[in-house]
Amino acid sequence: MAVAELCLFPLGTGSPSVGKYLEPVLEVIKASGLKYYVCPMGTVVEGSVEEILELVKKCHEAMLKAGAKRIVINLKIDDRVDKSLTIEGKMGV
Amino acid sequence: MAVAELCLFPLGTGSPSVGKYLEPVLEVIKASGLKYYVCPMGTVVEGSVEEILELVKKCHEAMLKAGAKRIVINLKIDDRVDKSLTIEGKMGV
Amino acid sequence: MAVAELCLFPLGTGSPSVGKYLEPVLEVIKASGLKYYVCPMGTVVEGSVEEILELVKKCHEAMLKAGAKRIVINLKIDDRVDKSLTIEGKMGV
Amino acid sequence: MAVAELCLFPLGTGSPSVGKYLEPVLEVIKASGLKYYVCPMGTVVEGSVEEILELVKKCHEAMLKAGAKRIVINLKIDDRVDKSLTIEGKMGV
Repeated sequence: MAVAELCLFPLGTGSPSVGKYLEPVLEVIKASGLKYYVCPMGTVVEGSVEEILELVKKCHEAMLKAGAKRIVINLKIDDRVDKSLTIEGKMGV
Repeated sequence: MAVAELCLFPLGTGSPSVGKYLEPVLEVIKASGLKYYVCPMGTVVEGSVEEILELVKKCHEAMLKAGAKRIVINLKIDDRVDKSLTIEGKMGV
Repeated sequence: MAVAELCLFPLGTGSPSVGKYLEPVLEVIKASGLKYYVCPMGTVVEGSVEEILELVKKCHEAMLKAGAKRIVINLKIDDRVDKSLTIEGKMGV
Repeated sequence: MAVAELCLFPLGTGSPSVGKYLEPVLEVIKASGLKYYVCPMGTVVEGSVEEILELVKKCHEAMLKAGAKRIVINLKIDDRVDKSLTIEGKMGV
């Protein structure tokens, strides 16, 4: 299992406050069934690399539907095969 | 069309030189048919968000096959719907 | 005030487990006096851009001292001048 | 010597085209005296970690002066002590 941090934001919105574009993304993450953990700079999820990439696609679609004209996605995945990574395990450094 | 930068590297390989894990990843990118551009800190590709995420999955599999036990993936996507982004367009700032 | 996420890891260590290189980095962050918040994929800090960059330098030095031969640093800063960003504010989306 | 990729962009600018905020940043990089290489998803520079962090501070100031109200900075540094990294060396994978 892998742990990933996902961060999307829209460019060219009329205001520096972009919460209304982020809310539908968080709804998609919650609905995914994957374990998640909201962090200040992104949302962390736990799953297989395939599940995580599928989720990124849905988050991108949700932000487009929210009206974003340009979207920057930052994704960082940490995947380990000799033992399974978990959100909780990675919190203990 | 979106432009993305993809960077994978293995942890715990015993040597700070990790080229032998990167070569099969580059082969996968070349074989993908997507336009690509090798940069010092990652490889840039041009395609739909869906094509890019599919490619990430294949790159991850290639590095696992190369023997990596832990892989960190960094992906940054820039997607724009009011006009199409291209590698060349983004080089002109 | 800005909020930043900082993530360092060593390449070429003998094992995929890199906790012993991360511990001294966390000590440096704790000793900095900046407000911080440990996340699964990095540590989030709150401060001016100048304070954050100064901290990155010290974290890098700490990981070198821990014996790392190659270090990858990922830093993401979110800075806003029309109102002050805080870790707590950014947790509420 | 380290190699780093630096990417800044402004949020809330009203238009998805942000080139006028990026131009002064590129001017700062050119004036720094560091070797640089413009990539589609950021600009790559070569220098010590200290020089790179100093440059990030100046780029941030330049984008603020250009009128940005909220700035997201992405910095990735690859530093190696057993041999010196260069932009050219890293292009050969």
